Amino acid sequence: MDLAECYKKVRQRTEQICAPLQTEDYVVQPVVDVSPPKWHIGHTTWFFETFILKPYFMGYQEYDPNYNYVFNSYYETVGNRVIRTDRGNLSRPTVIDIQLYRKYVDDAMQNYIACNELSDEVQELLILGFNHEEQHQELLLTDIKFILGNNPLFPAYSHEYEKPKVEEAEDKAFIKLEEGVYEIGYEGEGFAFDNELNRHKVYLNAFEISPSLVTNADYLEFMNAGGYHDFRHWHAAGWDWVNTNKIEAPMYWHQIDGEWHYYTYHGLEPLHLHETLCHISYYEAYAYASWKSMRLPTEFEWEAAATQFNWGSRWEWTESSYLPYPGFAKAPGAIGEYNGKFMVGQKVLRGASEVTSPNHSRITYRNFFQPELRWQFTGIRLAK
Amino acid sequence: MDLAECYKKVRQRTEQICAPLQTEDYVVQPVVDVSPPKWHIGHTTWFFETFILKPYFMGYQEYDPNYNYVFNSYYETVGNRVIRTDRGNLSRPTVIDIQLYRKYVDDAMQNYIACNELSDEVQELLILGFNHEEQHQELLLTDIKFILGNNPLFPAYSHEYEKPKVEEAEDKAFIKLEEGVYEIGYEGEGFAFDNELNRHKVYLNAFEISPSLVTNADYLEFMNAGGYHDFRHWHAAGWDWVNTNKIEAPMYWHQIDGEWHYYTYHGLEPLHLHETLCHISYYEAYAYASWKSMRLPTEFEWEAAATQFNWGSRWEWTESSYLPYPGFAKAPGAIGEYNGKFMVGQKVLRGASEVTSPNHSRITYRNFFQPELRWQFTGIRLAK
Amino acid sequence: MDLAECYKKVRQRTEQICAPLQTEDYVVQPVVDVSPPKWHIGHTTWFFETFILKPYFMGYQEYDPNYNYVFNSYYETVGNRVIRTDRGNLSRPTVIDIQLYRKYVDDAMQNYIACNELSDEVQELLILGFNHEEQHQELLLTDIKFILGNNPLFPAYSHEYEKPKVEEAEDKAFIKLEEGVYEIGYEGEGFAFDNELNRHKVYLNAFEISPSLVTNADYLEFMNAGGYHDFRHWHAAGWDWVNTNKIEAPMYWHQIDGEWHYYTYHGLEPLHLHETLCHISYYEAYAYASWKSMRLPTEFEWEAAATQFNWGSRWEWTESSYLPYPGFAKAPGAIGEYNGKFMVGQKVLRGASEVTSPNHSRITYRNFFQPELRWQFTGIRLAK
Amino acid sequence: MDLAECYKKVRQRTEQICAPLQTEDYVVQPVVDVSPPKWHIGHTTWFFETFILKPYFMGYQEYDPNYNYVFNSYYETVGNRVIRTDRGNLSRPTVIDIQLYRKYVDDAMQNYIACNELSDEVQELLILGFNHEEQHQELLLTDIKFILGNNPLFPAYSHEYEKPKVEEAEDKAFIKLEEGVYEIGYEGEGFAFDNELNRHKVYLNAFEISPSLVTNADYLEFMNAGGYHDFRHWHAAGWDWVNTNKIEAPMYWHQIDGEWHYYTYHGLEPLHLHETLCHISYYEAYAYASWKSMRLPTEFEWEAAATQFNWGSRWEWTESSYLPYPGFAKAPGAIGEYNGKFMVGQKVLRGASEVTSPNHSRITYRNFFQPELRWQFTGIRLAK
Repeated sequence: MDLAECYKKVRQRTEQICAPLQTEDYVVQPVVDVSPPKWHIGHTTWFFETFILKPYFMGYQEYDPNYNYVFNSYYETVGNRVIRTDRGNLSRPTVIDIQLYRKYVDDAMQNYIACNELSDEVQELLILGFNHEEQHQELLLTDIKFILGNNPLFPAYSHEYEKPKVEEAEDKAFIKLEEGVYEIGYEGEGFAFDNELNRHKVYLNAFEISPSLVTNADYLEFMNAGGYHDFRHWHAAGWDWVNTNKIEAPMYWHQIDGEWHYYTYHGLEPLHLHETLCHISYYEAYAYASWKSMRLPTEFEWEAAATQFNWGSRWEWTESSYLPYPGFAKAPGAIGEYNGKFMVGQKVLRGASEVTSPNHSRITYRNFFQPELRWQFTGIRLAK
Repeated sequence: MDLAECYKKVRQRTEQICAPLQTEDYVVQPVVDVSPPKWHIGHTTWFFETFILKPYFMGYQEYDPNYNYVFNSYYETVGNRVIRTDRGNLSRPTVIDIQLYRKYVDDAMQNYIACNELSDEVQELLILGFNHEEQHQELLLTDIKFILGNNPLFPAYSHEYEKPKVEEAEDKAFIKLEEGVYEIGYEGEGFAFDNELNRHKVYLNAFEISPSLVTNADYLEFMNAGGYHDFRHWHAAGWDWVNTNKIEAPMYWHQIDGEWHYYTYHGLEPLHLHETLCHISYYEAYAYASWKSMRLPTEFEWEAAATQFNWGSRWEWTESSYLPYPGFAKAPGAIGEYNGKFMVGQKVLRGASEVTSPNHSRITYRNFFQPELRWQFTGIRLAK
Repeated sequence: MDLAECYKKVRQRTEQICAPLQTEDYVVQPVVDVSPPKWHIGHTTWFFETFILKPYFMGYQEYDPNYNYVFNSYYETVGNRVIRTDRGNLSRPTVIDIQLYRKYVDDAMQNYIACNELSDEVQELLILGFNHEEQHQELLLTDIKFILGNNPLFPAYSHEYEKPKVEEAEDKAFIKLEEGVYEIGYEGEGFAFDNELNRHKVYLNAFEISPSLVTNADYLEFMNAGGYHDFRHWHAAGWDWVNTNKIEAPMYWHQIDGEWHYYTYHGLEPLHLHETLCHISYYEAYAYASWKSMRLPTEFEWEAAATQFNWGSRWEWTESSYLPYPGFAKAPGAIGEYNGKFMVGQKVLRGASEVTSPNHSRITYRNFFQPELRWQFTGIRLAK
Repeated sequence: MDLAECYKKVRQRTEQICAPLQTEDYVVQPVVDVSPPKWHIGHTTWFFETFILKPYFMGYQEYDPNYNYVFNSYYETVGNRVIRTDRGNLSRPTVIDIQLYRKYVDDAMQNYIACNELSDEVQELLILGFNHEEQHQELLLTDIKFILGNNPLFPAYSHEYEKPKVEEAEDKAFIKLEEGVYEIGYEGEGFAFDNELNRHKVYLNAFEISPSLVTNADYLEFMNAGGYHDFRHWHAAGWDWVNTNKIEAPMYWHQIDGEWHYYTYHGLEPLHLHETLCHISYYEAYAYASWKSMRLPTEFEWEAAATQFNWGSRWEWTESSYLPYPGFAKAPGAIGEYNGKFMVGQKVLRGASEVTSPNHSRITYRNFFQPELRWQFTGIRLAK
C-alpha cells in the first residue's frame, strides 16, 4: 500500500463530500448526535496533527493550540473535552480557517510521509487515521442529510448524487444454518478495529435468516396494520420512545395530501415502495420483527451467514448488545478510548450502508448506536 | 406442594416484612424506581384477583373496579396504566383499606383453592403469583431501606432485623474453567421464569473467577486511589453518571468527621470493613474491575462456575446484557409482558441477595436492572 | 386581647382542620407548591419554638435539633434549608411524633405566656405567629383539596364541611370612582404585614369596577366561545402555559359524559352554574377579561373601591405585580425574609377566600402568587 | 420627514452593522434569546413585505411564500409561528439568499414609496417599521456580542468599532425630588410605542436618585465583600438563579491569572475599573442596591427625574414591572401583538444604551426584559 497515495485519496474524498455545501451548511448542529460539517473536517485534521505530527514529526509547529480545544472529540486524555452540544454554537474558526488548517496539516503530513522511514507504530496510526476519516465521511453524509432534511425548505444536497447499487437477492427463501460452533471476529494481516478482536468460538443453535432486507412496501404493511399503536410488539423503552416522540413513521417520511414522501439527497420525493427500508431505530426493527412473528439475528448469526447473502446497502440492526469479545483489551493512551468506553447501552449493527466509504467494509465490522437513533442508513434483516 | 399452605405462607411473609413500619412509611415514593410499600401490598393482591379470581372463580365479586386502576403495574393489556411516578401522590386507598382488600382477596383465594379442582393452568398461575410476590418482598425490603435511609433522621427499620448468614470462601485462589461448550438455562420440573428458557449450549473461552466477593475494604482502596476521579476506568456513560450525580461512594455511605458510616436496617453505623460491598451500580462494578486490571464475568461464565463458590449475599453484576435466550417466546396475554419487554438497555445480575426471599434462588435465575441503579443489594465478583 | 386565649384558639383551629384526615393524607406532596399537611403542623410549631421559646424562654429545652432541619421553610438565616421538593419524601417524623412535638411546644408556650410579663417585642412575635399560623390554615385547606382532588378515587374531605356564606351583590351595575389621589396601605394599631406598609398616596384615573364576581356560568360562555383556543386574549407566557399544559378548564373541573363536574370538599359533584368561579390562574383571569373587552382592576383600584362591594369568597387576581410600597423596609433577621424576598415575578391578589381563617382579612391585605397557580380559591372581578 | 430617505438610511445601518461578520457568524443561535444575525436581516425585511407591500402595493409579487414561515417572529396572526429555538438549526436560506430577498423588497419598497401617495395608515406603518428595524439593530449588536463573546477564541467583532461617548455626571450628590403628582408617558406628534401611552398622572413620595451609574469599581467592592454569597441581598428567585447557574460575576467577565478581564467588541481586554458597569441582571442590580442599603428607582421616579441627569449609556433596571398604563389598548391585528402580550413577568428598563440606534431614544421609552437576562447593555442607577 502506498501510504502517501492513500493519505491523499482519503483526504480528498472528505472534501468531495463537502463540495456541494453552502458555507452556512457547515455550521449548524440541529441535534446533539449530528455534528456540524466544519467540525468533522477540523476534527479529522486534528487527529493526524495530534497523534502523528506532534509526537513523531521533529520540529513540527502546531497550527493553533486553541484548535486542540475546539476539535477534540471524546478523547479525555487529550486536554479538556468540548461539550458536544456546544459545537453548533461556534461560528469560528470559519470554514476557510479550517480549510487553511487542513492544508497546513496535509502539507506537513505529505512532507513527513515522503521524507521519513515510517515505523510500524506510525504506519498503524496512519491506517487508523484513514479508517477514522472514513468513518467521519459516512457521518458527514448522514449529518448533512439531517441538516438539510430538517430544513422546512427541503433543499437538495446535490442533484448529481448517485447512490451505489447493491444487488438484492432474487430468491426470498430463508437461508438455514446448522447448530454448532462457529468462529467469529477478525483474524488476518489487514486493518481491523480493536472491537473485532479476538477471533473466538461461538455456539449457535440452528437458525434461519432472510437473504434480503425489508422494503418500504413491507414496512407500510406494518404501519397500516397499526404497528405503531400496538404496545405488544414493542419493548417497554421503545413504547415510551414512540409515545414521547409521537413517532408514526421512519425518519424523513412525510405524508402530503395522503401520499407518503421522503427526503433524499435530491430533495423531497414520493416514496419508492420497492426500495429497501431505511432510517429506522432498533426499537422499530424489533417491533416489525415481532409483528412478523420473527426476530432480528444476533451479530454472531449474521457473521456466520453473511457469505450467503448480499449486504452493504443498510446497517442492519442485530439483537446483540455491543459488548467486548473474549480477550478484548483497550490500547493504552487516547487511542484506547476509541471503542471500549462505549460498550454499554448500545446495539450492534452489522454490514455497511450505501454511504459507507468504499473499502471500509468487512464481514467482521461492528458498528454500534443507541437503540433510538435513526439518522444512519439503518435497515432490517429478519431471522427465525 | 400444598398450594393452600404455600399461598398462606407467601402472603404472611409480605405482612411480616411490613410489620415494623409506621403508617407513614407505606405512602412515600422518593424516586421513581422505589414504590410505596402500600402499593406493593395492593399490587400483589391485585395480581391474584386479576389473573385468578376474576377469570377462574365463578361468581367472584370484584372488590373495587377503581383498584384495577391504582394497583396495575406495567401490564398494558389490563386497562390503563397508572404512570409510575404518580404512585407516591396517592394517600388513598389507605393502608387499612388495602389490608381489607388483601383480606377479602385472601379469603376468596383460600376459598377458591380449597373448593376447586385446580387446572394445570391455574396451578401455574398460582405458582407464578407466589414467585411474583416473592420478588415484591425483596423490593419491599429494598424500597423500605431507601425510604428510611434517605430520611435525615435515619430511622432504623427494626432493631430485631437479622440478616441471613452467607458463608464466605476462605481460599481466595481464583477458580479456573476450561474452554469448551457449556449448558446454560433452566431445565426441569420446577418453576422458572420464561427468561431462563431455553436451556442451550454456549461456547466459553477458558477463564478464571473469584470464589469471593469484593469487600468494603477492597473498595475503599479503589476510592482512596482516586477511582471516582479517573475517567480511564469508566464507560463514557458511567463517567457522565458519576459527574452529573457527583457520585463519590456507594449508596448509603456517609462520611462523618472523616469516618465512613453507612445506613443499615438498624440505622446509621460505622462502616464494617470486612463486610461484602453492597449498593453499587454496574458502572462502579465495571470501573472497579478495570482498576484491578480484571473484568466482570459474563452471566454464562457465572452460571458455569457457580457450583464451585458460595453465592447469595449480593446480586452480582455481570458483563452480560439482558437478552433473550435462543428459542425464548413470550407467553400470550398480560403474563407475557412479564420479562420480554425489558430486554433492552439492562444488565444481568446473577445470584441472589441477603434480602431475597427464601427458596426464591436458582443458579439459572436472571435478575436485571439499568446500569446506574444501586438500591438493590448489589456486589462485585471479579473474573479474568 | 388575651394572648393565651388567642394562642389556644389559633392552635386548635389548625387541629380541627386536620381532624377529618387519614394518616396517609398527611404525608404526600403531589406538586412542589403543595406541602404535606404534617409539614404544616410541624412548621407552625417550629415557628413558635424558634422565634419565641428558644430566644426568650430561659431554660427552654429544644425538643429535637433535627426538627429544625425538617420543619424550617424558606428562612435562610435559620440553619440549612430543606429543599421544598423533598418534603413529600419524608415519612418520619410521623404524624404522632409531630403531634407530640406540638403538645410539647404548646405546653411550653402556655407556660411561658402565663408566667412572664411579655415584652412588646414578644407580643409582636406572638401576633405574627398567630397570623402565620392562620396563613398555614388556609394553605392546609387548599393543599388537602389538592391532595384528595387529584386522587383518582376523589375521596371527600368531609361531608360535614360547610363553606361560609358570602353575600353576593344584587345590583350588577358597575361602581364608578373619580379620578384623583387615594390613600393606600395599612395604618392603625392592629396587626398588618410589612408588605401593607407604608400607607401612601396613589393617583388613580377614573375607573369602574364590578360589584360582583364572575360565575361558573359566565366562564362557561368564554370556554364555549373557544376562549382557550384564541391566542389573542392571552399573554405570550399564558398562551405557552395553556398549550404546554393542555389547559381546557379551571382546576378540578372534569367533563363526564358531556357534563361538567368539579371536585369539592364533598367529593365530585355536578358543576353549580350560579356559583362564583374558582381555581383559575392569573393568565385565565386576564384572558377572560380581555374576551369581555374589559380588564382586571389594579390592587389600588380594588382597595379604593372595596368598601362599596362585598368581598371575601375568592382571592381576586389584580393587574398589579407584587412590589414594595414606598418606604417598605425588611425587618432584620429571619422575620425579615417573610415577604420582601418574594417581590419579583408574582401577582397581587386582593380580598380573601371562603377558606381564609376568620378575622384574618383586611382591606389592605396583599396576597401574592405566581401567575400560573390555581390551587388557591381564586376568582375574577372585572374593571374598565 | 422624507420617508424614502429614512427608509434607505435605516436599512443601510442594519447592513453596516453586519459588515464585519463572517458568513458563519450569521448562522448560529447559542441560546434561545439570541437570534442568528441572518434571521434579523430576513425578519426586518419580512416585516415591510408583510405589513406594507402585500396589503398595500397593488400587483406586488411575494418573493417566496416559504419565507413567511421562516422569518415570522411572534406574530400569531400571520401564519404558523416558527419555534424560536429552531432558528439556529436552519442553514438555508443562506446569507446571500437573504440579501437577495432584502434587495428585492427594498426595490419594491422604494418604488412604492416613490410612486404612491401614502395614506396616514401606511405612513404610520412605515414609521413603525423603522422603529422595529432600529430595535433589531440593537439586538443584532447584542446578539453578535453574545455569539463571538461565547466562542473560546474570543474573536473581535471589529477593531474599528468605537462606542459612542456618554458624558458622566461630575457631581455625585443625589438629586432630590419633592412629593407630589407627576405626569408620565408620551404625548406629542412624534412616534411612540403603544406601551408609552396614555400620558397619565402618578403620585410619587419624595425620593432621591443618583446622577451617575454604578461603575465596575463600585461593583467589584460588592463582589469582594461576598455579595454573590450572601442570600440576604437577593430575592428568593434571584438566589436560586445565582446558585443554579453558579453566577460569580457579570456576563463576559473572566478571571485570568487573578486579574479580571472582559469581552468587548475588540476582543478580550483587562477590565476598565472606571467604566460604567454593564451586562448584569435585574437580580444582580437589586442585590447590589440592597447591599448599598438603597434601592432601584421605579420607572416613574426615573422619568420624573431624567431631565436632571445624563442617560443613554446603559439600559437601567427599574423596580417597576412591565404593566399597561391607564387607558392602554392593543392595536387590532398583528401589530397589536407588539407589546401588550409581554406585560407579565418582565421588568422595565429605562434610558437607552451605547448600542441603541441613534434617534431611537425617548425619555418615555419603556424597554422590558425578564429579570435574569444579561446580554443587553444593562446597568444600575441607585435611588433612596
